[in-house]
Amino acid sequence: MAKDKKVEQITDMEADFAQWFTDICVKAELVDYSGVKGFYIMRPYGYAIWENIMQYLDGRFKELGHENVAMPLLIPESLLQKEKDHVKGFAPECAWVTTGGEEPLAERLCIRPTSETLFCEHWSHVLHSWRDLPMKYNQWCSVLRWEKTTRPLLRGREFLWQEGHTIHATAEEAMEETRQMLEVYADCCETMLAMPVIRGQKTESEKFAGAEQTYTLECMMHDHKALQSATSHYFGDGFTRAFNITYTDRENKLAYPFQTSWGFSTRTIGGFIMTHGDNSGLVVPPKIAPIEIIVVPVAQHKPGVTEAALALQERLQKAGRRVKIDLSDNSLGWKCAQWEMKGVPVRLELGPRDIEKNAATAVRRDTGEKTEIPLDRLEHELPALLDRIQENLYARAKENLDNHIFAAQTPEEAKHLLDEHGGFIKTMWCGDPECEEAMKEKTGMSSRCIPFAQERLGEVCPICGRPAKEMIYWGIAY
Amino acid sequence: MAKDKKVEQITDMEADFAQWFTDICVKAELVDYSGVKGFYIMRPYGYAIWENIMQYLDGRFKELGHENVAMPLLIPESLLQKEKDHVKGFAPECAWVTTGGEEPLAERLCIRPTSETLFCEHWSHVLHSWRDLPMKYNQWCSVLRWEKTTRPLLRGREFLWQEGHTIHATAEEAMEETRQMLEVYADCCETMLAMPVIRGQKTESEKFAGAEQTYTLECMMHDHKALQSATSHYFGDGFTRAFNITYTDRENKLAYPFQTSWGFSTRTIGGFIMTHGDNSGLVVPPKIAPIEIIVVPVAQHKPGVTEAALALQERLQKAGRRVKIDLSDNSLGWKCAQWEMKGVPVRLELGPRDIEKNAATAVRRDTGEKTEIPLDRLEHELPALLDRIQENLYARAKENLDNHIFAAQTPEEAKHLLDEHGGFIKTMWCGDPECEEAMKEKTGMSSRCIPFAQERLGEVCPICGRPAKEMIYWGIAY
Repeated sequence: MAKDKKVEQITDMEADFAQWFTDICVKAELVDYSGVKGFYIMRPYGYAIWENIMQYLDGRFKELGHENVAMPLLIPESLLQKEKDHVKGFAPECAWVTTGGEEPLAERLCIRPTSETLFCEHWSHVLHSWRDLPMKYNQWCSVLRWEKTTRPLLRGREFLWQEGHTIHATAEEAMEETRQMLEVYADCCETMLAMPVIRGQKTESEKFAGAEQTYTLECMMHDHKALQSATSHYFGDGFTRAFNITYTDRENKLAYPFQTSWGFSTRTIGGFIMTHGDNSGLVVPPKIAPIEIIVVPVAQHKPGVTEAALALQERLQKAGRRVKIDLSDNSLGWKCAQWEMKGVPVRLELGPRDIEKNAATAVRRDTGEKTEIPLDRLEHELPALLDRIQENLYARAKENLDNHIFAAQTPEEAKHLLDEHGGFIKTMWCGDPECEEAMKEKTGMSSRCIPFAQERLGEVCPICGRPAKEMIYWGIAY
Repeated sequence: MAKDKKVEQITDMEADFAQWFTDICVKAELVDYSGVKGFYIMRPYGYAIWENIMQYLDGRFKELGHENVAMPLLIPESLLQKEKDHVKGFAPECAWVTTGGEEPLAERLCIRPTSETLFCEHWSHVLHSWRDLPMKYNQWCSVLRWEKTTRPLLRGREFLWQEGHTIHATAEEAMEETRQMLEVYADCCETMLAMPVIRGQKTESEKFAGAEQTYTLECMMHDHKALQSATSHYFGDGFTRAFNITYTDRENKLAYPFQTSWGFSTRTIGGFIMTHGDNSGLVVPPKIAPIEIIVVPVAQHKPGVTEAALALQERLQKAGRRVKIDLSDNSLGWKCAQWEMKGVPVRLELGPRDIEKNAATAVRRDTGEKTEIPLDRLEHELPALLDRIQENLYARAKENLDNHIFAAQTPEEAKHLLDEHGGFIKTMWCGDPECEEAMKEKTGMSSRCIPFAQERLGEVCPICGRPAKEMIYWGIAY
């Protein structure tokens, strides 16, 4: 059968999760490979998902008083070097432009891996008085990081993201911004992408190059590995001092402002694929689905079916739904498999029997459940059904997360739990980077975060036995 | 007076038009200079204008069935070389990446100057059947062209734009697309930017590298020079043959599709500045204005004024207007000058006397005209006033254009008319590139376009005396 043939094209997730993932990226027509390793083409269906995410985030940013800007693509090497931790973190993965036009350049220019240095240079020009503060900027763009191992959506040498950059008069205000933007990201993950998150703080060794503190959202994938889905950084006045960004404060004295940055990328698309997808393909949460409902006529050669299906599509479109119709000459089985592969939340089948009954059959992508809906109830029932799908995806992912966090008292127990169940392992920790490193060596897990929601699992660090400072999450990360 | 002091900061356009222009770009806070020549920062106010333009164009593109995608930033040198005219046109102004991470690259990668080659590579992967056609794609991004002479907004080494790329089964359909997208651009220029355009075709020597035909919109600036504001290209099957892009047609034979591309950039922001601006600064057409109305309290220290102004702002916001209020401690004169500099279409003044009369005073940016509007009429009167401003800007620009097109019968007459009045000179032409070159040498003008709206000014080519083929426009271009 055509349906089986199509579904055969993707690897079972149980057989090879990594291959299953890349199969979905390609077969659901999210991305295509370009001629340069690690550079991917975001195809219309993938980009439309990103547009829905952008629309949500951009709206939230603006509500909170942020303004969009566009910074240059290129950073002179000398500018990148102004903040020492920052250049140490990023220089090894920069792409360098050495020729412009037909002339070799006097100074190499790096394609932005992130834009803190460019924002700092700009602020050093335009910030004068306390009246100018805060400056809350954002840009939508792509950045380059020359990674050795690359995978579509998860780790590209180029990826699409937004980067927010703000400066404030006080450390408190900057810290509040850092936390607020993490919450905006958490809302986006939880309400739009149906991905539950663990909010926490990165350790010294895992934080962003040049930041004083990095906050993170950690998600759990279907294979129980971790995905860092978004981060928000507090810089203190480290960069503003390095770039000599000053302003005249209310007391008429020169002062350094405090800075934040925060980013959300197309990596989260990889995240929801690995959270909700199944062996039939992609499952897109309704709130970010380019197509919420696909209308599929059954026995479309029979008189009146195509017309009725078209009328149905038009009605739903008028009701504000993102709806398409499949009138191709493919078989019904092929069509069903194709739209399942693309993860459309609801397939609405309409055939001669449905028409007779004045109804249509709605098939849920998440559960496969079929419901007959009277045509005159569609505008009412479909939004409710889409909401139920969104909730169910979140609930399933939350269950997966909650069922795969295990407490351990020793590195050996941590390793055993990991091998047995996968997931996140929580332990106490003394706060010493050496113990973090030792845990990594013994278990293969990196620290994911020091969660905001702390528990007291014991009194001592399981690695060194000294008094424990806090609880920390460990995991195998993408 | 504070007002005069502020206005003094920009050069008079009559004294130095180029300096007047860059003064506006900087003082109206549209752009800032970065550390790399030809790379500009698009500041919040400038970017907000671009966002309004993007929103309009993106909506039109989607209505017409185009889908957004994201192509890689980098093009391998070998890929760029596949179409010979194209590489000849663009290679001299490419920026080249030669190091990725810490390794020299085996092949240089060029930062996209435009993305035809990338779209072609992608289509060669994903196009299979006539069922897949047309493919109508667009991307919003920045591109790099290593120009020698650079100016903010008009000619940057990096600029923001959209590039549409489509392939079609027939030459006719591709040609229709090429013309249709030029019309979309013309609508954007005329209805949104209030810039009248001349639609026409580029000559062989002025067309896009690799195109069969380039259509253009030519606008006239305040100094009577020409600005090419947008172009739309028809490629025939030149690229699809060079990239071996084939599909199986309805007769089950392999065929090459036909291709178009079209672009609209931030250069048009430079265009409307030079069309509508004056010696007080920027004048933004209401339809693309980030702020349509600025509320300025008069004698704001007097009791009740600030509260009344805030209530007014809130009312207008609720009525869907893009409105801000200036409650800064600057003087009234300074505030007026500042918002004039930023080109806000309407300043709404509210002072104790206005409050007594239950009215506000609206001041038009385009004419300086003041009108007292009763408060309960504001929601009704302001949209109408904004429409009148939009129409007036267009009418003034149209008058400037119409009054500065002159017909000439000889190169000498053309040169004389140009020296006397500036503007566009129209002549007949035999179609020979050598005559085009001769005209350029004799007058300093380049050919702007062969306008769609043809006239018969005579029977012979004014350069060679052979029979004339068509009418052509000449001008000095930005």
